[in-house]
Amino acid sequence: MAVRHYTLDFSLPAPADLPATMQGLQSIFQEQEMTETIHDTEGHGYLVTFIGKNGRFGVLRAHSHGLVTFDLQCCEGDDVAQVDNLLNELEKKMKSLLHGNIKRIKRLPALRRGDEVDRYWPTADGRLVEYDIDKVVYEEDSVYQNIKILHSQQFGNILILNGDVNLAESDLAYTQAIMGSGKENYAGKEVLILGGGDGGILCEAVKLKPKMITMVEIDQLVIDGCRKHMRKTCGNVLDSLTGDCYEVLVEDCVPVLKRFAEEGRTFDYVINDLTAVPISTAPEEDSTWEFLTLILDLSIKVLRPTGKYFTQGNCVNLTEALSQYEEQLGTLSCRVDFSKEVVCVPSYMELYPSKSNLYFVFVFSLYWSVFFIKYFQACFLSFLSGFKSLVPKLWCVGSL
Amino acid sequence: MAVRHYTLDFSLPAPADLPATMQGLQSIFQEQEMTETIHDTEGHGYLVTFIGKNGRFGVLRAHSHGLVTFDLQCCEGDDVAQVDNLLNELEKKMKSLLHGNIKRIKRLPALRRGDEVDRYWPTADGRLVEYDIDKVVYEEDSVYQNIKILHSQQFGNILILNGDVNLAESDLAYTQAIMGSGKENYAGKEVLILGGGDGGILCEAVKLKPKMITMVEIDQLVIDGCRKHMRKTCGNVLDSLTGDCYEVLVEDCVPVLKRFAEEGRTFDYVINDLTAVPISTAPEEDSTWEFLTLILDLSIKVLRPTGKYFTQGNCVNLTEALSQYEEQLGTLSCRVDFSKEVVCVPSYMELYPSKSNLYFVFVFSLYWSVFFIKYFQACFLSFLSGFKSLVPKLWCVGSL
Repeated sequence: MAVRHYTLDFSLPAPADLPATMQGLQSIFQEQEMTETIHDTEGHGYLVTFIGKNGRFGVLRAHSHGLVTFDLQCCEGDDVAQVDNLLNELEKKMKSLLHGNIKRIKRLPALRRGDEVDRYWPTADGRLVEYDIDKVVYEEDSVYQNIKILHSQQFGNILILNGDVNLAESDLAYTQAIMGSGKENYAGKEVLILGGGDGGILCEAVKLKPKMITMVEIDQLVIDGCRKHMRKTCGNVLDSLTGDCYEVLVEDCVPVLKRFAEEGRTFDYVINDLTAVPISTAPEEDSTWEFLTLILDLSIKVLRPTGKYFTQGNCVNLTEALSQYEEQLGTLSCRVDFSKEVVCVPSYMELYPSKSNLYFVFVFSLYWSVFFIKYFQACFLSFLSGFKSLVPKLWCVGSL
Repeated sequence: MAVRHYTLDFSLPAPADLPATMQGLQSIFQEQEMTETIHDTEGHGYLVTFIGKNGRFGVLRAHSHGLVTFDLQCCEGDDVAQVDNLLNELEKKMKSLLHGNIKRIKRLPALRRGDEVDRYWPTADGRLVEYDIDKVVYEEDSVYQNIKILHSQQFGNILILNGDVNLAESDLAYTQAIMGSGKENYAGKEVLILGGGDGGILCEAVKLKPKMITMVEIDQLVIDGCRKHMRKTCGNVLDSLTGDCYEVLVEDCVPVLKRFAEEGRTFDYVINDLTAVPISTAPEEDSTWEFLTLILDLSIKVLRPTGKYFTQGNCVNLTEALSQYEEQLGTLSCRVDFSKEVVCVPSYMELYPSKSNLYFVFVFSLYWSVFFIKYFQACFLSFLSGFKSLVPKLWCVGSL
């Protein structure tokens, strides 16, 4: 059961004679055999609702300041041509009643409400975006998260974890960026990937002939889904958990990192591709805050002095988080080399413009904004500890 | 005067006891002092409307198949925190009434209706997309079209002609693609640009040291607007209509092309960057059809036998148009060399994935789909005429 919700709005240059205009429209709804109810808005303009056949429901509202809105809700399977015709008639009639004196007429694509497949995944900065998603190809609830892989005609399959768009088969740009955008030499190097269960980073990294890649992904069900449905991203690297130059540990990365630190095992590259965490406006009240600090502390412990640390950032529109991070870096007691890169990740439908010579690898999903504020505070603390101990050349590509 | 339209939908696994559930929600609206009206839906579920203070209007609908939708319209300046609280309360109450037995809860970012600045510019395949547009920086009605330049935080300024997103300052990818993606050698060549009033192609082309670029743009007001507000796209090339290696003719390109053809003047590259035309589902009934045929015929007449012709295509989701074009190319009586490239043009918020070894420069705006169907028919006819006469190596990058 789904509902199509049509909107048709008229911005008038000046308040019109609303009752007269509304009455002028009546005939259209009468023709459609819609039953009218006029409501008392307590002085807030004119409001009529209409009940039609097949469960059609209309709302015509005229605001005293000259905005006229019309909503039409129709059940799935209703006659689309008939509905379009009703909207066309309404538009025509309004033009003639107002003698074309209309500033703007806006008719949006109908909202699909209650569809089997959810097509609406807002951007990091809270804008409404409809995807061309036509199929749920995989859905599982693991002990860690809800895992969805949805099919988009243009982006291929899209991995969505706990409602956050993580990666689509179209998004090689993300993987390349978080690996250093082709400017790094991975040949003969030792690489540690935290998370990355979609296999994208692993797949690209093995092509670069590293000495050894260790990937630590906690969720077997993510690996299972991506191995089957994200082939354009992971190729065949997830077909086996071990390969000539890689091994995938299906474990929580924290104990693994601790073990590596104790063993004194270090890496040339640590790539943090861990997933988003729930949003919180108060980092200190959020337990993930400690978790993130821990991850970065441990990462730095296993990073060679000449090593590099890569992670993803966030949407440039979240400028407050950005400046907060910049400020924190400025207060570091020791110099931190870092670069940031902006990439356009197709399935995110956002661009991340470069800022002077600073680049950001900005990769977001709905809840990442505050994650990254917290993240950078964690980062800041860790820089200190990190530099006091190992003094690695720490790169935060994409830190926000 | 603007209205924020909030939606909150609940997909239930099975039809619930609707009247009981709806009555269970009443207290929330009573607390908000909203006046309830129950409507007779003639057997199509349960429908209540609510009138609240400050012009708030709510619609609660329970469909017999288990979809419950709630709409809340609030006037600009209404207390957002209070509104969010109402939605949170409703969500909480529904969960408790249905004992968490809900398949999906969906709350979309509020629709901004009647805003001073229009943020909604749907994709070529008719999906709803909200841009982060915050300012109208230029708006003129020329004798040819409505010209808007709107500011987006992430895309920079965006040129919109007759309601179609044409190009944003972020969209170098479009310009590079329609010039052959860096695979062409423009040095010492003669180039003809049709349209291109934003100056993007001209700006990039002059850097490549061509012998001469002739650009024919009909609309001085587009040039004026872009010179001032699209500097990231056009640089300083529009500051003067003539330069060391270019001249801009502010004319209708048809008589100019005819004149060139008569004079026997030819070019190494013809880049067709003319704007979209109104949609029509019946090409043969559309006068623009002849216009497009004419443009391509004339273009081929001024194209050197070794010359290349570039133009933009359309959204890959418009697969019908795509196959129609492919079929037509297959029926050509003479071989046509062409390549197609897919690029992700940031401000279009669509990706155009490559298809085997065929690439498409797909550049769309809302009404281009049928334009390109017609265009390609034109293209097909012109190939024949073109090949019968000059037999140029004709490249249609991005033809759909």
